[in-house]
Amino acid sequence: MAGGSGTRFWPLSRKALPKQFLNLTGRGIMVNETFDRMTGVVEPQDIFVVTDTLYAEQTHSMMDGRINREHILAEPVSRNTAACIGYAAMNILKKYGDGILCVMPSDHYVRREEVYAATVRQGIALAEAQDCLVTIGIEPNYPATGYGYILSREARDARGDVLPYREVCRFVEKPELETARRYLADGGYAWNSGMFIWKASVILSYYKKLLPEVYECLTRLGEAMGTDREQEALDMIYPVIPRISIDYGIMEHADRVLMLEGGFGWNDVGSFEELKSLHTADGQGNICVGSHVMIDTENCICYSKDKMIATVGVQNLVIVEADDIVMVCPRDRAQDVRLLVEEMERRGHREYL
Amino acid sequence: MAGGSGTRFWPLSRKALPKQFLNLTGRGIMVNETFDRMTGVVEPQDIFVVTDTLYAEQTHSMMDGRINREHILAEPVSRNTAACIGYAAMNILKKYGDGILCVMPSDHYVRREEVYAATVRQGIALAEAQDCLVTIGIEPNYPATGYGYILSREARDARGDVLPYREVCRFVEKPELETARRYLADGGYAWNSGMFIWKASVILSYYKKLLPEVYECLTRLGEAMGTDREQEALDMIYPVIPRISIDYGIMEHADRVLMLEGGFGWNDVGSFEELKSLHTADGQGNICVGSHVMIDTENCICYSKDKMIATVGVQNLVIVEADDIVMVCPRDRAQDVRLLVEEMERRGHREYL
Repeated sequence: MAGGSGTRFWPLSRKALPKQFLNLTGRGIMVNETFDRMTGVVEPQDIFVVTDTLYAEQTHSMMDGRINREHILAEPVSRNTAACIGYAAMNILKKYGDGILCVMPSDHYVRREEVYAATVRQGIALAEAQDCLVTIGIEPNYPATGYGYILSREARDARGDVLPYREVCRFVEKPELETARRYLADGGYAWNSGMFIWKASVILSYYKKLLPEVYECLTRLGEAMGTDREQEALDMIYPVIPRISIDYGIMEHADRVLMLEGGFGWNDVGSFEELKSLHTADGQGNICVGSHVMIDTENCICYSKDKMIATVGVQNLVIVEADDIVMVCPRDRAQDVRLLVEEMERRGHREYL
Repeated sequence: MAGGSGTRFWPLSRKALPKQFLNLTGRGIMVNETFDRMTGVVEPQDIFVVTDTLYAEQTHSMMDGRINREHILAEPVSRNTAACIGYAAMNILKKYGDGILCVMPSDHYVRREEVYAATVRQGIALAEAQDCLVTIGIEPNYPATGYGYILSREARDARGDVLPYREVCRFVEKPELETARRYLADGGYAWNSGMFIWKASVILSYYKKLLPEVYECLTRLGEAMGTDREQEALDMIYPVIPRISIDYGIMEHADRVLMLEGGFGWNDVGSFEELKSLHTADGQGNICVGSHVMIDTENCICYSKDKMIATVGVQNLVIVEADDIVMVCPRDRAQDVRLLVEEMERRGHREYL
């Protein structure tokens, strides 16, 4: 899933360059890191990318030979994750009869790729064997309010032995801080990583039951797939698919969801602040990507695409240089970058959005 | 005088682009502003620029047709202001027999150009009539420690009437803050603007008396002027001219120096801080040159050459974007920009100097 949008990485991310195209690790752009990580589990030719039509060509070109153009599924408009995943599942069903889908956001970070690969392989085996929905939960290490949570319990076999997966009790939305603290103390809660594994046929049966209107649209799309009416059907039907997330539409209501614990150093890199999880700070607590010279500088996050960032005597700032913008704000105001984007929009500076 | 050097405007100013080439007002580069200001007093074809050989061609090109290449006097090396001014005076003497020199630093700002022109015209008349040294003093409005001072007294004619100029008692070097406060309270002190007006023959007679070694060098340079040995003589002799400032070598010892009060809104623009004298702050006390969007931003100084500077939630910062550098420091640490330059030098980043 490489739909992308959002302003939290502005001015690095732009309307024309959403987060999945950013190189936040310094090793490569996120969609390619995601692709390469998955090649530890599946054949490269079995990978599909779903993105907005707006980004389809750019994705093809930035993925640099990794993927055939036909494996980039272009949504005419974004209609949230239920539409996106359903559309992908219908494609697999029509092309291959059926198949396991590993649904992976394209803009997350994973530290330990072998552990990730082993976990996903285990999920594939589970989904194959049990026709269930599998999700990957992340053990929380702080009371995050930016993630949804999954409450789960141990699964045991008939003899009472503990199984290597857990049974999901419920999905819960992003909590307030107090609630998050309670979840953390409780111990039965994991972060919802947004990674799912299931058979195309199985998830579509859930759509039929839980999201019949979405399912109706997907069915009509499926009928047109592989015919000369395919693009026309997409353009007509996609914009009317009900906008709903897979979590809210399916996961919170599905009866049999299994969870694997993802102990692979996951991070959704939701803000500049999270760059600290991807990079080692210097002795003064500064996280820097790109060239920099710092004197008497502490706890700053600096990201430069082209220029040298030079600082003296500053603390706790985020400093970002990208293309035609230099952005400076305190670390604890980084969420207010959206105010800058709104102001740019208000002033008609579309070139900066 | 457009010799130039210094790091106080780094990264705007560089070894290859000293302050006289900066456009700090937003209207034009300083050397051109100085040139244009002087055309209110003298004919353009009577203006000479003295600069380092290093900058001679650049000066010619950046002055954009204002000046003939032959009117750019190139010093093979910088040897302080006594050498620079003496060399210029000797040129005038050899080319024109004699003439009035108006010695003007090329990197100062003047707000009221008509007042400036009138003051300089008055200085020319004085230097012409009295064969004296004329300087322009600036009435101080705060106890500056970055300027030299001139102590002067009223001049009166034989009948006891006050004359429209003052007699200089002495030149004093940059004071400590306490001393500067005393000067301000005293009322008889003016800032030394470094602007001087005198006949070439008169100033050279002072060199002969007060700086005989410099004078000896100038004489030998003068003998070669207009011959095919001129460049050779420059290259041989200039590097051995004693290094001394005109203030220390001549002004502090000369017997008859008259001072005009320069009430024309002068500023030497010695630091980023001084940009506040050249530009009107916005309602939050921010001084901005170049494009910018600021939210919850107070008392910042922002200068961008090419990029948009976007800030949210910051105060009292200097933010400069220039070519390949972004520099951020608190306003009260701006003098430490030299530490960054030194660090760049130490790391061998010559391209950033």
